[in-house]
Parts: sequence; C-alpha cells; structure tokens
Amino acid sequence: MPRTSQRLSKRTYLAQATRLREQLVELQVELKEAPFKVLLILAGQEGAGRGNLLNTLAEWLDPRGVETFSYHAPTEEEEKHPHQWRFWRSLPGIGRIGLYAGSWYTETLREEARSKRVLGLVGQEAERIRDFELLLANAGTLIVKVWLQLSKEAQGRRLRSLRAEPATAWRVTDEDWHHHRIYDRLAKTAQLIRKKTDRPGARWTVIDAEDERARDLAVVQLLLNQFRQQRRKMNRLGWDRRVKPVTSLRPSGRRRLSTLPLDQDLSEKDYDALREKWLGRLNRAVRAALAAGRSIVFAFEGWDAAGKGGAIRRLTSAIDPRDYRVIPVAKPTDEEKHAHYLWRFWRDLPRDGRMAVFDRSWYGRVLVERLEGFCREDEWRRAFGEINQFERELTDHGTIVLKYWLHVSHAEQLRRFREREATPHKRHKMNAEDWRNRKKRGAYEIAVGDMLALTDRDNAPWHLVPADNKRYARLEVLRSASRRIEAILAE
Amino acid sequence: MPRTSQRLSKRTYLAQATRLREQLVELQVELKEAPFKVLLILAGQEGAGRGNLLNTLAEWLDPRGVETFSYHAPTEEEEKHPHQWRFWRSLPGIGRIGLYAGSWYTETLREEARSKRVLGLVGQEAERIRDFELLLANAGTLIVKVWLQLSKEAQGRRLRSLRAEPATAWRVTDEDWHHHRIYDRLAKTAQLIRKKTDRPGARWTVIDAEDERARDLAVVQLLLNQFRQQRRKMNRLGWDRRVKPVTSLRPSGRRRLSTLPLDQDLSEKDYDALREKWLGRLNRAVRAALAAGRSIVFAFEGWDAAGKGGAIRRLTSAIDPRDYRVIPVAKPTDEEKHAHYLWRFWRDLPRDGRMAVFDRSWYGRVLVERLEGFCREDEWRRAFGEINQFERELTDHGTIVLKYWLHVSHAEQLRRFREREATPHKRHKMNAEDWRNRKKRGAYEIAVGDMLALTDRDNAPWHLVPADNKRYARLEVLRSASRRIEAILAE
Repeated sequence: MPRTSQRLSKRTYLAQATRLREQLVELQVELKEAPFKVLLILAGQEGAGRGNLLNTLAEWLDPRGVETFSYHAPTEEEEKHPHQWRFWRSLPGIGRIGLYAGSWYTETLREEARSKRVLGLVGQEAERIRDFELLLANAGTLIVKVWLQLSKEAQGRRLRSLRAEPATAWRVTDEDWHHHRIYDRLAKTAQLIRKKTDRPGARWTVIDAEDERARDLAVVQLLLNQFRQQRRKMNRLGWDRRVKPVTSLRPSGRRRLSTLPLDQDLSEKDYDALREKWLGRLNRAVRAALAAGRSIVFAFEGWDAAGKGGAIRRLTSAIDPRDYRVIPVAKPTDEEKHAHYLWRFWRDLPRDGRMAVFDRSWYGRVLVERLEGFCREDEWRRAFGEINQFERELTDHGTIVLKYWLHVSHAEQLRRFREREATPHKRHKMNAEDWRNRKKRGAYEIAVGDMLALTDRDNAPWHLVPADNKRYARLEVLRSASRRIEAILAE
Repeated sequence: MPRTSQRLSKRTYLAQATRLREQLVELQVELKEAPFKVLLILAGQEGAGRGNLLNTLAEWLDPRGVETFSYHAPTEEEEKHPHQWRFWRSLPGIGRIGLYAGSWYTETLREEARSKRVLGLVGQEAERIRDFELLLANAGTLIVKVWLQLSKEAQGRRLRSLRAEPATAWRVTDEDWHHHRIYDRLAKTAQLIRKKTDRPGARWTVIDAEDERARDLAVVQLLLNQFRQQRRKMNRLGWDRRVKPVTSLRPSGRRRLSTLPLDQDLSEKDYDALREKWLGRLNRAVRAALAAGRSIVFAFEGWDAAGKGGAIRRLTSAIDPRDYRVIPVAKPTDEEKHAHYLWRFWRDLPRDGRMAVFDRSWYGRVLVERLEGFCREDEWRRAFGEINQFERELTDHGTIVLKYWLHVSHAEQLRRFREREATPHKRHKMNAEDWRNRKKRGAYEIAVGDMLALTDRDNAPWHLVPADNKRYARLEVLRSASRRIEAILAE
C-alpha cells in the first residue's frame, strides 16, 4: 500500500491538472475500444473529500463514458435478494468507468459506525468482498481502490471550519461528528478491511487527503498509471483459439453419467395418475417454501432434444403463474456478451417468495463455451469454483437451488432429431448446430462429467434424470423436486 | 366485441391444432424481422383456464421469442414509482411476443374483488389504461386482448369437478370461490372496463371458454389474424424521409425565446458569495422534499455549449451523492432504439426519496428527432401530447419535475466552440455534428419554440435560463430550483 503526500501551489496544480485532463480524455477514448471496464472506488474518512473529488472527476471526464454509483441502506427489494445482488446490478458496462463514491466498503464501514461489530464478522464480510473483486478482476476488470487518508486532527479542523461559515455549515452532518468521535475505532476497522482485501488485481492505495489539490492530482495519476498497466497486461494476454483435445479433469463424473440406466418404462395410464398426485405434492411444497420467504431456482441442462422444455412445462403447470418466471438462456445479447458471464444470471435471480426456472444456465460456461473455444482455458477452469461460489451465495441467502441434467442415449436422440425434422411444426426446433453438437458427443460427455463431478455440492446437488422415456423423466423431475424442497423445509 | 363459441371433437381439434402450430411458427419467424412487438393479454373469469391456455401457448411457441408476464400486488419498490412504472418495465422487446397471464386488467379486477369500489374510480383507472395502450398502439405495438368468458354455472361446475378429485383439489383456492360468489358484480365491472378500453389498436375479443379445445384454437386463430392485419398495416405505412421546411406550430414559444435578455453580468466575487448561499438553500429544499417521500426529476435542455454540464455539476454539489443520479442521454443503444422512445426514461425514473438529473431528455423527440427526420411527422406531432401525459403521470404520483432550457446567443456559442477547439482537454467535446447543428439554428429555434409553447404546463413549467454569462446561468438554476421546490412543498 504505497502512500503519497505532498503540498501544492495553485500554479503547479493548474499546470499539472491541464496535463492530466488531456491524458484522461485519451484514456477514455482508448477505453471505449478496450475489452475491459474500470471501477474507481473512493473510500476514506468523512471529510476527506469524496464528494469534491467526485465533482472534479465528473468535470474532467466525458460524462458519456462514466457512471457514478453510491448506495443507501438496502431497500426491501435488495434485502430480498442475495447480499451482492445490488452490487452486481450496478456494474458499469464494458469500455466505461464506474465511479464509486459509495461502495461495498463505505456500506460496511457505515454499518460498523452505527453499531460496533465483532471484528471477526467484519473479517468475514471482507472475505466475501475479496472474492467478489477477485471474480471481476479475473474477468479483466480494472479495480482501482483509493483510501483518502485524513488524520483525526485534520478531520476536526475541516469539520469545524465548514461549520463556522453559515454558507457551508449545512455540509456537516451529525453522522460526520459521530464518525469523528469514534475515529480511532473506525480507522482500525478500515485498516483490517483494507488488509484483507488488498490483493493482486484489486490493490489499495492510501492517498493523503489533507491537501485537496494534491489529493485530486494523485488520484487521477493513479488511475492513469493503473489503466496503462492493465492495457499492457490485456495486450499480452494471448487468446489460444485452437480447440485442444478434451481430456477429463475428474473421470468419476463421466462414469456416473455412463452408468445411468435408461430403460425405464411407464404406461400412459400410470403416468396420468401419478402426474396429478405429484403435481399436487409439488404445488404444496413450492407454496410452503415461497410462503416461508424462500426463493427457488431451477437450472435445467441436458442433451439437445432431451425434453427440457416439456419437463419445465409440466413442472410449472403446478405453480401459480404469478410466482415463477421461465428464463430461456439463448446466445448472449450484445449487452450480455460485454458483461461477466454470471451477470445475466444475477440479474434474473428471483426475489424471496418467487421462483425462477432457467432453461439452460450458467453451466454453459463449462459446456458449450469450453468446447467451442468461446472462452480461454484458464477461464472455464476457473468457472467451476466461481459457479460453486455463486450457488453458495444463493443457498446462504436461503434460496433453494435445484439442478437437473436430462440424459438421453445417443440412439434416442437420433430418433427424436429425425422425428422433429419430419414434423412441420417441430422442424424449427432443429438446426445444423444440433447435428454438429451431436457429432461431438464424446467431448461433451467429458465436459458434462467434469461438471457433474466438480459442481455437485451438498448445498446444490445435481439430479441426473434418465430421459429416454419422456413420461418417466417428467415424473422424476416432479418427484425429486417435491422431495428435495420438502427435505430442505424440514431442516 | 365479436363473440366466438363452438364445440369441438378431439379429432377435429388435433387436425386444426397441427395447422395452427405451423402458422404460429411462421408468425414467429416473420415477427423476428418485423418492426413491432405483440402483446397478447389474457383476461377472464377465474376457472376460464388462463393457466392452461398459457401452457398450451408456451408449448406451441418457440420460447426464445416469448416472454410471459404476471403480476403480484405492487412491491414496495413499485409503490415508490408512478403507477405504470412496473408495466413499462416489463414490456417485451421488439420482434417478440409478450404473453400476459396477468395484466393491468387482472390487477384492477383482483383489487375490485377484494374491496368493492365506486364504479367511477374503476372508470378512471380504465381511462389511464386506455391512454397507456393508445401510446403503445400508436408506436406500432400489436395489442391482442382476449376475454375468456365462462358463465356462472359453468364456473361452478368446473370448480366443483376440480375439487372432487383429490389429485386436482389443490388447484381450487378460496379466492376462486370468493370470485364465484360475487360473479355478477365482477362481470359488471369487467364489462365496464372492457367497454372503456375497447379502442382501435387495442380491441377486445370475447371468447367462450367452456370448451377448452375450442377456446385454445380460437385464441390462436385470433392472434394469427390480428398479426397479419398488423403486418399489412405496417407495410402500408410510408416513411417520408424528406426533411420538410420547418414551420412553427405555435409562434409564441419562439417569441418567448427571442425576447429573453442575455446581457446579465455577475462578478466572480459576487458569484462565490451567492453560490454558497443558494447551494445551502437548495440543499435544505431538496432534503426536505426527499424526506417527505417526494422524488425530483430535472430535465436539462439547451444549445450545444450552453453549459448544461457545468450547471448540473454545481447543482449536484449541493446534494448527497447517495440521493441522486445524473443520466446523460446519448444516442439510444440498440436495445433502446427498439423500444418506445419514452421507455428508457421510465426505466431511469427515481424512486420516492431520490432525485434524477437528465442531461438532455425525452424532449429529443421534438428537437433532434423532429429536425433530422429520425421519426415520422405524425410521431413527433403526437409526442407533445404524450410528453405532457408522461409528465402528468409523474406529478400525479408526487414527483417534482423541473425543466430547464439554457439559452445562449449565436455569437456566444461560436466563441465557446472556438475556445473548445483551442483547448486540448476540451477538444473532445466538439465534433462535426456540433457545427452542422449550429448551421440549423433557425430551424431549431422553431422546434424549441414549439416545445416551449406546447409543453409548458402548470404541473411542469419550463424555466428559460439566459446563459451567455455562465456564472449567472448556474446561479439562476440554483435559485429557481430552490424556490420552486420550496413552493411545491408549501402547497
């Protein structure tokens, strides 16, 4: 954590400011073309001038490439989602700068100022922040974190001089004075958080905030330096598009897949009777979960033509349409392509008391994106851990996560493909890509196997559903979903 | 309101269904390329089978082109926005179908079922719905509205037969029985609402729901017919790109503009003293408004280089960064281009207790879009009324709306353009378009004049700010904003 401190004359300031402004303009022009986004996080003692600095930056930067963020205490809507939902929602777009006058840090510190907390708890929160930033930094986001440092004496002087002038007295609030009184405690907490979250890709820089001119110049200079470093790093980053032979990371998953029996039988008559029974049971289980303030997330994956759509329609026919949304996951839109791959799933998370059914999901990262070279090897390898972390955030919040893999044999898939092609109103479901994917069954089996082995966790286990018999598969989804929701509610 | 009724054998049903499914698939393929969106609104008596119909449609349509909507009672977040915010937020994208299992209609009726309301009030709500649909229909949206009609006797039979089977008893809720008991009252209210909202571009069709097969086929057939009509209508609609000579609709506005004195003077010293005073006063006024649960919306318009950015930065320096957002309105993104021109402003409205500052605004429709031929003449002509209606929705909700036109002389603008070009860190603010717009000053004066004359309303008046003197302009914004907010709070 380097430390900067100096005193500046107005003349030197103006000369340097002009030079830096030109460079900032160049930075923004370059950033527009660059494949990453920039987060500039401003934290620091009250009175250290986050507001003024923000105004200076707003004046110096082209506003069309900037978004400014700040947070109040969470709204009811935000409380009803996992903790990081509101921060995920407010990330800037790629090629843009996000200025954080408030952030996960100010929120944590404000909370601590209101009610003293055990340092261990603050440490846990810091670890969660660290993981979040790591995820973003790994995806190429430049995170510049500035701590504006003001001594207790300087803080007192600044607050008193503002209060003395009738024209500026309104700037000083009771909360400011409270923070001044507990300066030492807050400084200690802040230091702990900075230490825990000072990591490659998300480093802290402490900048002396007593001299306002020096402070502003130092922050801008820091932003420029780190931007240039990041640009060089991104340029060095090779992109190996050769699709390598696919080898298994964890063969146990593939074995689990290949040993799944697929010869189930179920007559239409038995199915009809059982279906109504299990629809009723699922309806009761889901209603009980939602009424208890839990949210439910279904993720459906499976081979092409495995019957995901049909299974989802049977499932949702048991649920009040106001309580759920089905989210078909197609190729990402432009906006989504430019965001973190988990972003659109964060965006579509249901609030407490609601349910979302994802028809294909975040697992695309370790399936199609892995096999088609849509991301780098280090990216899909990292994704297993990131996905486990994502699902952990959900279940920690109280969300019930249900994951299904619908498994059909190679032969049955062929039969269904041919049937689709022969039926006019089903033909649109087929395209050349389906046939191409079919040829890669071996590679996909390895990827699916790795997925099953590496992301099968107690908090979010995989359900493998034999789906050569459609009726059996649909019923199996109803049965296992009912049982799992009941079991979780009974915990 | 045509009425359809028939009885169908399973065999006839299957034959017709196959044919309709093919046509639905074709519809979706065509819709992808079509410049409009489709809303299919399903309303009707409880037990008429909205849920089943939705499931059928979900099976027949390609899910990638469909979004399904349904509403609970408004959340806290929704309550804190103008009434229609949640419906604006959930419109489907262009080229897509929105299926509304719930809608503004079901919500209104559900409310009525809970607590009997004066029919006059229901009528007012229906008028608001009618205006909303008219706005969408005028923008080319196809709105298909279906009322699924079930007689009281048929409703009773259906509820009883569901209840009799243990496997389906869960489908019948207490609310259903309540609706059954007050069938006549609800039917009367529904009829009133349908009558008030049955307008060209948003017609009701009543479909008999007793025979489920006939019901499903009739709805799909209706959708197909109306889609074809709409496609023909859209094809006929010419697009006259010739930019016609601009003539004034209401010359009084232009006179107001041209008689505004621009020779104000204000020394730096006087400005510094007055600024702090008015920043303080604005800070108190804004805090009082936000604390009272009001939201505040600023819209800044003005000539290029009139100093909008500077005025906004002085204004916001008086406000807690957590309380406001500045929204620079640039050229619409792809997503925005495909939506109604008011959509992105609805999206960015602040919730109660917050403030938003739009740097350029919805008035682009009657300024740049009018003059550059980005929309048809009938569209920008209609916009004056639509904008007044939009702002009326805001102020009815309690939002304080402040609109500023920053006015600089042609000579002062030239001086500023040249200064920008001569200053390295300001050069990026200038481009060829600025010089092109400058040449069209005469035409813009007419458009601005029409805007001032046609959208200057008591609930949202225009403030004209002389801005040849930047200091004076900034101060004038602070002064007039403080006074207006204070006056509204004193009402």
